[in-house]
Amino acid sequence: MIDTVAIVGVGLIGGSFGLALKAAGFRGRVVGVSSSATMQEALERGAIDAGLDLANAAGIADLIYLSQPIGRIVDTLRHLNAVVKPGALVTDAGSTKHAIVTAARDHLKRARFLGGHPMAGKETRGVSGADPNLFRDRPYVLTPGDPQELETEKAKEFLSWIESIGARLVTLGAEEHDRLVAYSSHMPQLASTALAAVIGEESPDAVNVGGPGLMDATRLALSSYELWRDILATNTGAIEEALSAYIGKLEFLRENLRTRAVQEEFVKAGEMARRLRELPLR
Amino acid sequence: MIDTVAIVGVGLIGGSFGLALKAAGFRGRVVGVSSSATMQEALERGAIDAGLDLANAAGIADLIYLSQPIGRIVDTLRHLNAVVKPGALVTDAGSTKHAIVTAARDHLKRARFLGGHPMAGKETRGVSGADPNLFRDRPYVLTPGDPQELETEKAKEFLSWIESIGARLVTLGAEEHDRLVAYSSHMPQLASTALAAVIGEESPDAVNVGGPGLMDATRLALSSYELWRDILATNTGAIEEALSAYIGKLEFLRENLRTRAVQEEFVKAGEMARRLRELPLR
Repeated sequence: MIDTVAIVGVGLIGGSFGLALKAAGFRGRVVGVSSSATMQEALERGAIDAGLDLANAAGIADLIYLSQPIGRIVDTLRHLNAVVKPGALVTDAGSTKHAIVTAARDHLKRARFLGGHPMAGKETRGVSGADPNLFRDRPYVLTPGDPQELETEKAKEFLSWIESIGARLVTLGAEEHDRLVAYSSHMPQLASTALAAVIGEESPDAVNVGGPGLMDATRLALSSYELWRDILATNTGAIEEALSAYIGKLEFLRENLRTRAVQEEFVKAGEMARRLRELPLR
Repeated sequence: MIDTVAIVGVGLIGGSFGLALKAAGFRGRVVGVSSSATMQEALERGAIDAGLDLANAAGIADLIYLSQPIGRIVDTLRHLNAVVKPGALVTDAGSTKHAIVTAARDHLKRARFLGGHPMAGKETRGVSGADPNLFRDRPYVLTPGDPQELETEKAKEFLSWIESIGARLVTLGAEEHDRLVAYSSHMPQLASTALAAVIGEESPDAVNVGGPGLMDATRLALSSYELWRDILATNTGAIEEALSAYIGKLEFLRENLRTRAVQEEFVKAGEMARRLRELPLR
């Protein structure tokens, strides 16, 4: 039974997970591990019931939810084994999985690990933006190294909470996940960043004539590098592959601007863009 | 005095221009030149007062507003000289300017020409989507070959109508306009089309995990090629230049994913993206 949950890193995702658990009827205890200012705010918001340090939280938790930045999650995994309650389930919410799953396999021996990535977020960061409905109708990816990781009693209980908070479970291998998000998230981010950077360098007067399409295309460019440093460092190979495919496609378009080949690309792209809109929540 | 306006091509832009003129207090006559089905709908919507063929409309109009696709505008300009009312002002709403301005200079001798590009639009095409407020707070670019083109009596009257319908006048050279929209509109379109096409080819399962950022980045990919064929054919050089700069930036990011150089690009891109949002209506 999951009686005590420890949320390590009570930011937007961690705080929302605490609020969502409580809203879904979780009657156990939720403890948070964060800076004292954040824990105070999380307590006031009702996202956690108490703030503890990592050792004390890990010593009593049946489920440990690591919702720090990727690099911090890897660090935490290196120290967690010494303090974890034996048999606990450790999961995470990091945006790339290979580095985290590898760190867990190498360092976490006294507890079970199940990698996760809730596909949720919003523009407001931190626990102040925490929202019990953040996960609702959004994909929640789990990356078991072995299907049996989903069959333990604690894992089944955790899965049922994911469903109770309204998320849609998706199961992928860690490498499969990382390649997929390289295309669905990391490539679009860098495409938008590069677009806005090039306009700034080559054509800053675009501010005088920009329309709604340019706003859409540059919205991701507003993202902070702070959120992306660890992603780019831990998924470099898959991102390089995706960017190379993207550059190849742009070169093809550039060489064919006056030919029918571009029409075929518009048709293919339109079909994919429509599919993304038909099934955004599957 | 502009007593009679002929709108050639009564689609979204032409129909909106007719509605906007009337809403702004234009008391003259607005005639339309389009297919008979479109003219019927435009009459019902009140965007025009009568439908005529090109020769009859051009023979009575003081202002001729060409709001067809670019290739059709160039065709119309080739035939307009023989039928135009001498001294009329001819303007257009085409998305690229060099090819149109050149056609006007070569073929239109009995009337004055002033190139234009209202930076307005929406997803619904055709006169059924026409909206008297379509131009409100949006840039309206004029591309005089010589500043004196703005000083004729008819031009000044036309400019005052542009202001009356709520648009913001921006004056640019035709080449300057075309280079600017290559960066602000054509490059973002192709960036989005390439992104969706690559995802469709390399990672179609992205439909299972796509978030709001991917929706933003692929929204332009929903555009129809039909609208883009003439743009790509008439602004090829500037678009090739913009795509090359974009490809160069993506290559730089790909080579530097783990370095601080990417942070600088995020900062530059974020600044430009914020500037676009501070001044979208200037």
